[in-house]
Amino acid sequence: MVQARMEAIGLRQGDGDEAMGMTLYELAGADPALRFSPYCWRTRLALAHKGLAADAVPWRFTDKAAIAFSGQTRVPVLVDGGKTVVDSWAIAEYLDDTYPGAPLLGAPRAHARFINGWVDSQVHGGIARLVVSDIHTVLAEQDKEYFRQTREKALGGQLEALTADRAERVDGFRALLAPARLMLRHGDWLGGAAPDYADYILLGSLQWARCVSRFELLAQDDPLFAWRARGLALFDGLLGRAKTV
Amino acid sequence: MVQARMEAIGLRQGDGDEAMGMTLYELAGADPALRFSPYCWRTRLALAHKGLAADAVPWRFTDKAAIAFSGQTRVPVLVDGGKTVVDSWAIAEYLDDTYPGAPLLGAPRAHARFINGWVDSQVHGGIARLVVSDIHTVLAEQDKEYFRQTREKALGGQLEALTADRAERVDGFRALLAPARLMLRHGDWLGGAAPDYADYILLGSLQWARCVSRFELLAQDDPLFAWRARGLALFDGLLGRAKTV
Repeated sequence: MVQARMEAIGLRQGDGDEAMGMTLYELAGADPALRFSPYCWRTRLALAHKGLAADAVPWRFTDKAAIAFSGQTRVPVLVDGGKTVVDSWAIAEYLDDTYPGAPLLGAPRAHARFINGWVDSQVHGGIARLVVSDIHTVLAEQDKEYFRQTREKALGGQLEALTADRAERVDGFRALLAPARLMLRHGDWLGGAAPDYADYILLGSLQWARCVSRFELLAQDDPLFAWRARGLALFDGLLGRAKTV
Repeated sequence: MVQARMEAIGLRQGDGDEAMGMTLYELAGADPALRFSPYCWRTRLALAHKGLAADAVPWRFTDKAAIAFSGQTRVPVLVDGGKTVVDSWAIAEYLDDTYPGAPLLGAPRAHARFINGWVDSQVHGGIARLVVSDIHTVLAEQDKEYFRQTREKALGGQLEALTADRAERVDGFRALLAPARLMLRHGDWLGGAAPDYADYILLGSLQWARCVSRFELLAQDDPLFAWRARGLALFDGLLGRAKTV
């Protein structure tokens, strides 16, 4: 049953005892194979980067009881043997501390954390205003009212109204990505010569939109479009083969 | 003569032969002691971080002939013995390669480069639109027409008109700094527990405004205000003791 679920969502089976024990609670839609949280994708990519396997358990916004043991109400929640770690940034630090091969964050970690904060504070609001109504569409019935109430309050408008003029606003969103675009003048990845957590942060956010919406965030001639294509192919197509709408 | 100039601008005399040979061409105003280029400040802070001394030679926008030997037309230009290095980012990499003690950039360097690109692409335009008319005021006579023509073309307006409503626009500029502000929830510096080039990038940009203008970019209750105060005190007050208008 666990094996079948892992195969369904494209996770690899690990060899080590420690990896066998890992469980990741991950946001899902009405279709349990549809996983779309940007933060959970950061963790999925981080685990793949380390070569670690995890049982990715589908979780919905209103399943607060299922993760009450973690002491808070949001995913990702990673359980590694007897250790529970919450928050995607804390999980990335935990993975680098515990499994130091194939570093995710570099040194000082503060530089990667800056990129994390840039995406959270500058990019996520822009993505939300382009696809938030599509997120609502894919949710399980029990999550729909919770999502509408919390997001309409946070974003200051009715979900469908927020995205109605997205075709006119997408250029403004694309302009926000200038710092990432500048990086691609110097290498294939935000991490430089090879992908690292800097890439996974922004790839996770674009995957969020890609899984829930057919609205295209990037222009085809944008260097970030080709970068995302490289990202979709990483880890045997972890992102590219993921379930989308 | 060199010694007097170094003391005038607050550089320290080095002990090593290599340091004695360094020269930094640095943008200056009509008053040669007024140094205000954000890129030159990055280099000044990087040199101080390494404990390296340099003779900082005043240079004006129209002094193209003085740096023609560098093969381009902008400062900073660093001459270290027989080696000439141009562009503040390339200079930082050169310093980490050549003087590896007290790392500036960390690893991978791409993460620091992202922060560099974020400031250049997201922050500098905002600062320019708040203080560009004040920059014009401090320039040497021979630079004024060059500066007005190039900046009015780049920014799309008459210099004094661009800054006329700055008091109403400064909150918008402050919002742009959110990613840096987020970092200060976790430590005193953008580099984490200690300052590094990530700090020097943004400190250099704020110093640019601080040297040419009395218009305050930061609110006193902004965590970035306290961070800048810590930065002004670094290296015996290199930034804090610098000449301002």
